[in-house]
Amino acid sequence: MTIQTAVEQLRTLLGDRLSTADSVRDLHGRDESWHPDVLPDAVAFPQSTQEVSEIVKICAAQGCPIVPWGVGTSLEGHALAVKGGISLDMTRMDRVLEVHAEDMDAVVQPGITREALNEHLRATGLFFSVDPGANATLGGMAATRASGTNAVRYGTMRDNVLALEAVLADGRIIRAGSRARKSSTGYDLKALLVGSEGTLGIITELTVKLWGTPEGISAATCAFDSPEGAVAAVIQTIQMGVPMARIEYVDEWSIGAVNAWAKMSLPEKPHLFVEFHGTPEGVKEQAAIFGEIAAEHGGGDFKWTTNAEERAKLWHARHNFYYAGRALRPGCRGISTDVCVPISRLAEAVIEARRDMQAAGLTGGLIGHVGDGNFHAGLYFDPEDPEELVRVKEVAAKLARTALRLGGTVSGEHGIGVGKKAYMEAEHGEALGVMAQIKRTLDPQGILNPGKMLDLN
Amino acid sequence: MTIQTAVEQLRTLLGDRLSTADSVRDLHGRDESWHPDVLPDAVAFPQSTQEVSEIVKICAAQGCPIVPWGVGTSLEGHALAVKGGISLDMTRMDRVLEVHAEDMDAVVQPGITREALNEHLRATGLFFSVDPGANATLGGMAATRASGTNAVRYGTMRDNVLALEAVLADGRIIRAGSRARKSSTGYDLKALLVGSEGTLGIITELTVKLWGTPEGISAATCAFDSPEGAVAAVIQTIQMGVPMARIEYVDEWSIGAVNAWAKMSLPEKPHLFVEFHGTPEGVKEQAAIFGEIAAEHGGGDFKWTTNAEERAKLWHARHNFYYAGRALRPGCRGISTDVCVPISRLAEAVIEARRDMQAAGLTGGLIGHVGDGNFHAGLYFDPEDPEELVRVKEVAAKLARTALRLGGTVSGEHGIGVGKKAYMEAEHGEALGVMAQIKRTLDPQGILNPGKMLDLN
Repeated sequence: MTIQTAVEQLRTLLGDRLSTADSVRDLHGRDESWHPDVLPDAVAFPQSTQEVSEIVKICAAQGCPIVPWGVGTSLEGHALAVKGGISLDMTRMDRVLEVHAEDMDAVVQPGITREALNEHLRATGLFFSVDPGANATLGGMAATRASGTNAVRYGTMRDNVLALEAVLADGRIIRAGSRARKSSTGYDLKALLVGSEGTLGIITELTVKLWGTPEGISAATCAFDSPEGAVAAVIQTIQMGVPMARIEYVDEWSIGAVNAWAKMSLPEKPHLFVEFHGTPEGVKEQAAIFGEIAAEHGGGDFKWTTNAEERAKLWHARHNFYYAGRALRPGCRGISTDVCVPISRLAEAVIEARRDMQAAGLTGGLIGHVGDGNFHAGLYFDPEDPEELVRVKEVAAKLARTALRLGGTVSGEHGIGVGKKAYMEAEHGEALGVMAQIKRTLDPQGILNPGKMLDLN
Repeated sequence: MTIQTAVEQLRTLLGDRLSTADSVRDLHGRDESWHPDVLPDAVAFPQSTQEVSEIVKICAAQGCPIVPWGVGTSLEGHALAVKGGISLDMTRMDRVLEVHAEDMDAVVQPGITREALNEHLRATGLFFSVDPGANATLGGMAATRASGTNAVRYGTMRDNVLALEAVLADGRIIRAGSRARKSSTGYDLKALLVGSEGTLGIITELTVKLWGTPEGISAATCAFDSPEGAVAAVIQTIQMGVPMARIEYVDEWSIGAVNAWAKMSLPEKPHLFVEFHGTPEGVKEQAAIFGEIAAEHGGGDFKWTTNAEERAKLWHARHNFYYAGRALRPGCRGISTDVCVPISRLAEAVIEARRDMQAAGLTGGLIGHVGDGNFHAGLYFDPEDPEELVRVKEVAAKLARTALRLGGTVSGEHGIGVGKKAYMEAEHGEALGVMAQIKRTLDPQGILNPGKMLDLN
């Protein structure tokens, strides 16, 4: 019972769709996180659910770890084969199987990226909403319960996956959920698998919600004198029931970084980047209400646009803050924290994070999906300077503790992977034991993405 | 190890908050469903989470079933002690523990009813949205993943429970979720417990989303020439992104029943009952768009109102269709079916249901939360006529099969209880085995609400 035997049997099953080449293993041994590279023993490229099931059965018989792989955009090392074994590259299962325009849903394979899906949908007037910035695969996004800038309006992967098919650790193929918009029949296994980071099953098909492309879209940047003013404006806007499509906080440091990176010239002050979706009339009304609220809290310097190209530029810049930050300091790497707190505690959390960063002498910025109470500190460090990495990790840990103290969570959208396991007990207490019971029941050998999310004894 | 010993030990623990009086057992032996009454051996009235945990430990040691009880409004026998044991009446745990107006959430005990919570919130400008018609407890609503008329806009219990506390079958107390609006940390145990019908844990605390009371509300009834026209109008309205607060289908039979019951005088044709929430301007715009769409599909006879009292009357009538139907035939009982299908298949499902009812010679009506694709057939029968009940059950079973064939679910919101267990395998296939594995892991003795949802070997 060895990984080597599994690899040999998989080669017989898959032929040249099983690779042990260094270059291929290398590509599947790193993600976008700060975690060290780890190469899998081999990479398998399945083409069907049935094949995934057969692969899993071979690996189960040999006790060989299986690590699902999308496009490697994880920020927490989810797809690294830290216990060796097979990287299961799902990108050859990337088809759109069905689009039901009347029902506003689509059935897709897990290897499709969100941009490819939206390209496919272009003529339908519908779009898939979840947008974590990276052009991730839908399977990876479901596995990490991803969200992003427009979750405040359209929800996270939790809300947008209607149904899924998955292969369990013994090769069983199950379906959970349906195309019906709601159901009260049995345990919500779909919700259990979404966010399970490949540790309970391998997602082989997804049915996702689609949304109507809004007739009217308007975006703006708005500068504030203080983080408190910006956050107060967010709270009031949400409470008024203004259906914001995006409402993003960007601190002055990040504005400086993005001005340099994207050749923009925004005032170096805390900002909100906002977007409104609706009928043209509705968008105008929303924008007017937001403008009044912002002004009450010291917001000004509005730059409005309804032009698609300018909006694309704005959100492209927003999505690339992490890289803009890194560009300020060539050769550095970064950690992106990801806490989420009740919105009433947001200003407190943001200010504490900034103070902690300054006290530790770190450079970096704060940005966030503040409509959800979720924000990221981009903390940069010299990979050759282990002492600086220690300070970065200390600030990240402090921020996680702050979030828990304020009634929040240590990860709003990036997930646990290998990077945040240390916080699971503090966040979940006794419930962590229940998670471990479920994991042991469904994967008694621990072959599905071992070393992620939970450490089992 | 007997139920009798458990009852004696519980009497020592709870004093007069443990009752074996016939009158008390009788009140906890019937719900609003058609299922036969079954009396529990005793009724316990806990006052705290700690006490629930102690009760569960005593029952676990004695192998005594525990059946959580709210106010007994289940339509599928969820709260009946079909295997004997203790009815756990949660209504003395009915306090609002915290209201966070800025965060738009509230922390409550499970025994509070939705009307009591909304009464408590009145001065805040916020409301709790989920409205299944019955004035159920929030614990019961979470356990059955309830929804109702406004789920199309505000979501179901699945969407509105942010966090919960539960006592498991061994007395452990766990917390799942937090007041943060989203999280990617670990398995979604909150989603696993919501809809688990008391079979995995007893919910002892809930954190729920609140919503801002809209400035503008407008409601209308609109008559159509055919069910197809009404459903086509619904589909187009949803696709246009009009944020309907309610959009309910009512067939001509039900209109007749409600005209008699509520002394209304609506034309006896298929209707949509709709409600719009938003700014006064927004509501006007939504109503105008809906009016145009309805007219395109043969909708007319609009009756609009923005008056709160008239709206209350309208929705009171809507919520009482089941009783209105029963009133047409004194002494009858009823079964309410509850399928939910993709909206594109809704007209087909509704027409097939109507045909099956007519072919079986049954009286009854069809009503539904059609924005979600969810509808109910109210099927009435003479409790003294077993042959008529057989025909009712046959039509209900046919309708369940139709829903599955059309890609839907056998229950949109009522749940499984004892009434729909027979359909679980057809709906879930292999996944039913996974549900059973989870149940056995978390409740190996099967003491939590046995005989509901799943039959274990």
